[in-house]
Amino acid sequence: MGLFDDQTSCSTDQPSINFDVDYVISYRASLKGTQQEALDNFSKLIQTLQRTGINTEVREGSDSTILVFLKAKERQLLNEVCRSRLKDWLFGIRSSAPEKSHRKFLSDTALSEAERLRNVYFLITRPLSENGAGVTPGKGEWQSVESIFPLHDPSFNKDLIKTWSTKSRLGLDDLTMINDQFGPKTAYYFAFLQCYFAFLIFPTGIGSIAWLFFGHCSPLYAIVNCLWSVIFIEYWKRREVDLSVTWEVRGVSAVKSRNADFKHEKMVEDPVTGETVAYFSPTKRICRQLLQIPFALIAASLLGALIALCFAIEVFIEEVYMGPLKSLLVYLPMTIITALMPLLQDPLSNIATRLVEFENYETVDAREGALVQKMFVLDFITSFLPAFLVAFVYVPFGTKIVPYLNFHGLVSVLVKMVGMESETIGHTNVEFSSDPDRLKYQIIYFAVSAQGMNLINEVILPFAKRKGLNSFKRYRSTHSNRSSIIRYNDAPEEMEFLNRVRQEAGLTDYDVNTDLREMCEQFGYLSLFSVVWPLTAVAFLIGNWVELRSDAYKIFYEKKRPIPWRVDTIGPWLDHLGFIAWLGSLSSAALVYLFHGGGVHSSNVVQTTGLLVTIFVSEHIYLFAQVIVRKLLGKIESPEMMTKRREKYLLRKRYVAENFEEGEPTAPEEIKTAGGVEELSNDAFWLQNKEADRAVKSGMLIIARGSLRSRRTRTQLQEF
Amino acid sequence: MGLFDDQTSCSTDQPSINFDVDYVISYRASLKGTQQEALDNFSKLIQTLQRTGINTEVREGSDSTILVFLKAKERQLLNEVCRSRLKDWLFGIRSSAPEKSHRKFLSDTALSEAERLRNVYFLITRPLSENGAGVTPGKGEWQSVESIFPLHDPSFNKDLIKTWSTKSRLGLDDLTMINDQFGPKTAYYFAFLQCYFAFLIFPTGIGSIAWLFFGHCSPLYAIVNCLWSVIFIEYWKRREVDLSVTWEVRGVSAVKSRNADFKHEKMVEDPVTGETVAYFSPTKRICRQLLQIPFALIAASLLGALIALCFAIEVFIEEVYMGPLKSLLVYLPMTIITALMPLLQDPLSNIATRLVEFENYETVDAREGALVQKMFVLDFITSFLPAFLVAFVYVPFGTKIVPYLNFHGLVSVLVKMVGMESETIGHTNVEFSSDPDRLKYQIIYFAVSAQGMNLINEVILPFAKRKGLNSFKRYRSTHSNRSSIIRYNDAPEEMEFLNRVRQEAGLTDYDVNTDLREMCEQFGYLSLFSVVWPLTAVAFLIGNWVELRSDAYKIFYEKKRPIPWRVDTIGPWLDHLGFIAWLGSLSSAALVYLFHGGGVHSSNVVQTTGLLVTIFVSEHIYLFAQVIVRKLLGKIESPEMMTKRREKYLLRKRYVAENFEEGEPTAPEEIKTAGGVEELSNDAFWLQNKEADRAVKSGMLIIARGSLRSRRTRTQLQEF
Repeated sequence: MGLFDDQTSCSTDQPSINFDVDYVISYRASLKGTQQEALDNFSKLIQTLQRTGINTEVREGSDSTILVFLKAKERQLLNEVCRSRLKDWLFGIRSSAPEKSHRKFLSDTALSEAERLRNVYFLITRPLSENGAGVTPGKGEWQSVESIFPLHDPSFNKDLIKTWSTKSRLGLDDLTMINDQFGPKTAYYFAFLQCYFAFLIFPTGIGSIAWLFFGHCSPLYAIVNCLWSVIFIEYWKRREVDLSVTWEVRGVSAVKSRNADFKHEKMVEDPVTGETVAYFSPTKRICRQLLQIPFALIAASLLGALIALCFAIEVFIEEVYMGPLKSLLVYLPMTIITALMPLLQDPLSNIATRLVEFENYETVDAREGALVQKMFVLDFITSFLPAFLVAFVYVPFGTKIVPYLNFHGLVSVLVKMVGMESETIGHTNVEFSSDPDRLKYQIIYFAVSAQGMNLINEVILPFAKRKGLNSFKRYRSTHSNRSSIIRYNDAPEEMEFLNRVRQEAGLTDYDVNTDLREMCEQFGYLSLFSVVWPLTAVAFLIGNWVELRSDAYKIFYEKKRPIPWRVDTIGPWLDHLGFIAWLGSLSSAALVYLFHGGGVHSSNVVQTTGLLVTIFVSEHIYLFAQVIVRKLLGKIESPEMMTKRREKYLLRKRYVAENFEEGEPTAPEEIKTAGGVEELSNDAFWLQNKEADRAVKSGMLIIARGSLRSRRTRTQLQEF
Repeated sequence: MGLFDDQTSCSTDQPSINFDVDYVISYRASLKGTQQEALDNFSKLIQTLQRTGINTEVREGSDSTILVFLKAKERQLLNEVCRSRLKDWLFGIRSSAPEKSHRKFLSDTALSEAERLRNVYFLITRPLSENGAGVTPGKGEWQSVESIFPLHDPSFNKDLIKTWSTKSRLGLDDLTMINDQFGPKTAYYFAFLQCYFAFLIFPTGIGSIAWLFFGHCSPLYAIVNCLWSVIFIEYWKRREVDLSVTWEVRGVSAVKSRNADFKHEKMVEDPVTGETVAYFSPTKRICRQLLQIPFALIAASLLGALIALCFAIEVFIEEVYMGPLKSLLVYLPMTIITALMPLLQDPLSNIATRLVEFENYETVDAREGALVQKMFVLDFITSFLPAFLVAFVYVPFGTKIVPYLNFHGLVSVLVKMVGMESETIGHTNVEFSSDPDRLKYQIIYFAVSAQGMNLINEVILPFAKRKGLNSFKRYRSTHSNRSSIIRYNDAPEEMEFLNRVRQEAGLTDYDVNTDLREMCEQFGYLSLFSVVWPLTAVAFLIGNWVELRSDAYKIFYEKKRPIPWRVDTIGPWLDHLGFIAWLGSLSSAALVYLFHGGGVHSSNVVQTTGLLVTIFVSEHIYLFAQVIVRKLLGKIESPEMMTKRREKYLLRKRYVAENFEEGEPTAPEEIKTAGGVEELSNDAFWLQNKEADRAVKSGMLIIARGSLRSRRTRTQLQEF
């Protein structure tokens, strides 16, 4: 890395751990065309890259792929970094101006791994017209380029996992380390998770107290929990800004990377930069965005209908049905969900993607944000509708609705299918009463079991699978006949490295939104339903300590190293959290009203009024708290912002000190001579008492005359 | 004005209309001490001013005052303007950096009347320690300084009134003219009034349609009106920012003038500028601010109780009481209000002022804002409580409550006092039914009569008074004996001017908050109650066309010329408008539910639920609309902001063009030579195929081997 101080990478003592490879291209020759076409395409790839200033090395990958190792030439990289930093400064993201000496401009801030990788990635993917290599995986002429990915730094990863596993909390240093290695997008996720984790301590304490002393559905816990979620969200908004200042990414959306699929209407002159840019009418886009509303409604009703149906069947079988095969039939609703859900979700996701394409965003980030926003509707229904049905339909209205459930036909068909007599089915539990603890069990299930399951699914299973597969391969390679095994012609000193690269090439991409979705769901349970079981936060606190480490582990070992994209926010998730917190203020109030004291209020008119008033009051506590917290936080300036302001001020102050002799401007000499009394000489009004004495005398006379008028003694006038 | 291009003042053709006077001090010698003390004080005033670089001239004022005419020396003023502009630039308010040549720095933007006057005012009032004259009217040693005020420019004022009276709307030019003459604080009021006036056109149209076709309390009108108020407030927020950019006052609160009453706890180093500044703990201030809550509660209940009492008496006398003297007694409640209101309001205002002092603000603006906020509680109760009582107590519950009103004792005492028999009092209207149109009449009264009354009070009466007084004086001076009349020894050429100054010295100060309060009250009636009488907006539209001009007239002829303070917002009034608009979404919904279709719903439980649901829905339409409008407005960048961004960008771009040869940086030469393949020579990994051909060949081999494995024919391999 020659010129640069690489402060953060732990690999400085072993510089060749990745042989200085910046990126690896996994290339799978297309089987569609002729062999010659495949060869031409590959040769074009190599030549394009080398012409752009990227060194290449070719090795054999697993499963008939070619691994192309890329390393940007130092000079090319320098130019790229300079240009990028200059652009940042032009758009106000960096505050320090570029210097004539490049060396100085670059040494100004050390080049982190993330910045290096980001610039190399731009070099590889930017269109040829903008001096890039224009290699876009899986698109256009580069169908054969399966993926472009940077390599993990094993020693950095190992050290980090080791450090974190003994730490109780991650500081700014740890997060900045993630930022320097994996870029702001990943770092923002960890920062959010750490912030959320730290904030969970409060509801953990309050929740434990509420659980011990306040009884079921305590109003006090509900209010405190609601206020907590307001403070958490507002604080995080501040924290986001602070981090963006620390990591120099504030306002980075101004230079975000272009969406390759963007179709422009016409070319216009950019009103800010004056350059000609592709343009698509925002009004048109807003019109297109309106399609979201029918999409959300249709998606919500389809998913909602499926979930409600299965829930009804579940209740019927578990609590009403007393016929044969009950032990088998209880699995029926789960089976229906598992079978039908993907049939609904997949086309809906496809429609969402199509909608986003149709909305035609200029930047990659806007596109991603729009997709996340649309998927949130689906996520929300699947995550929370079951609990809402239990809370607000099953428990309060169960006794009235359940007797009308008539799944006897369905059940009789099913029972017949397995060969039983249909007469035996008629037995139903006529004295049905809904189980008020059902919601609690559901929350406990999510908070404890589902969290554990998640960990197993995300980390332990893939780990086991990988280990198992490796042992199997090793077993096969030693026990089977030689001809069927792939043997690579690796040089001995490269063998370990290449095996690692082949393994990384087989990993999936890391998508930070998956992890954010998980946290958003968790926050949802906490804010919407935790009043039913105040220990929810305790379970989440423990779960998230593990989650923080296991997510790091997942990124390091189960995912390709992410491209270090720059962001200055967690994006649409912030809106989603806000929406959930607001809904929580309604939901908690309703739950408290319905379940407080253990009893379930039956529905009649007086109680509807009570419920509405409770919800109304709770919502306004929430809204009022939001206004107050925003005002208060707005008054307190964070150290990061203050530093930024100070830097700006000092920069200007220094400029003044350099340009003006005494640090402060004084009027030029020629005016000094023109000044004084002379400047008035042309105006008779100002000439009557140009000396101070005469002015004073005039005043004295007037005072005297005044006192004369106010009938004071004339003797006083004698003093003059 | 020598050096400066005075583009805006209309007085350039008559440069001596005010004899180039910047400020006038009205000095009334204290009668407390001896004559000598008075003389010493006056002589100190003159000497201090002259030492600071201000020329003085003394003339006799009316009523035993002395008029001291001030004019800053050109050199002093230049220094002051330079320093102020430099400070603006240091704090990021101005974007253009100061140049070494002062002439260039000053000619950069022409010096407006307002900027000149503001700088002279600072020169006069700033403490001696900061090179000012430290003259603070009515405070400390300057008890005798009654006021410091700039002089009106008669020709400018006349021209402006003439132009405006034929214009239907005021453009940015007109507002900028006000800004250049009277400063941003006054200009912001006119900008707000113009914006509000333009926005009124929409509810005027909708209101007329609703009045003609939709009938009483139309839900459609209520919703449209609610959405309108959201859009208006959000649009104004944007407009405020745009104007602050145009007038170069954005972020001006950073350099706001110090509150002279501020008491510091300790001196600390300013974290931004590094200077030592007086410090008062914000936490302590927040604690002190909590006192607002009991204050607001007590003030609201006291005023509320008085208003409710008088309202009850009014209803009793007007609609229940049938005894003698009814025609006289109907004036009783108004008399009570008029007599008791000041007895409550004055001490409450005093407490508010004390609270603000106790809260100890650093800047004049923060202090003013805090006072306005506290007074809003009082304003709100006195303005809207009567209408609320009619709408939500009298009309729905009147039939139930009124029969319990027992003011017979009070009335009998009053009737006895005027000597009637007490037996005649027993007659009451037992079949009372509340008058559902009472609210409508109240709204019509406010929208039509009160507006007219206001105009009379604000403009016509003072005008008549002034004219009358002048004629009287003229009459007296010609008809009475000579000795008792004040005759001034004015030079003939100054006589007209001095008479004008004496008159201006007698005018009151202009407080923009009074006018803003009026508009806020108007907006309140529109958003809270206009659903009862949809023509409200029509009345306001007409009223405000007049108001815009009459307010200008008022400032020009009934008030002292205001000191041109700088602001970048209408301050706390924005919050008040937001609060009222939100309350309007509740109030309109309730009114629609209660009065829709003409009938008054009596209160029982089912209808309470309906009312709550209506309010709930309406409020959420409001909140949802707010989120949407904010998002949409956030997406559309205003021309002003774009220009600002463009300027910043071009400035930096120019810097780059000046400092780098080809406009873009390229890597330094020494790296160019070190680049290329050589830089890899120390790493065996990168040496295997340093030429593109070899890399391609390696790839070909792998592709071939891959196709061999995938059982393609061997013949294809022969091609290599």
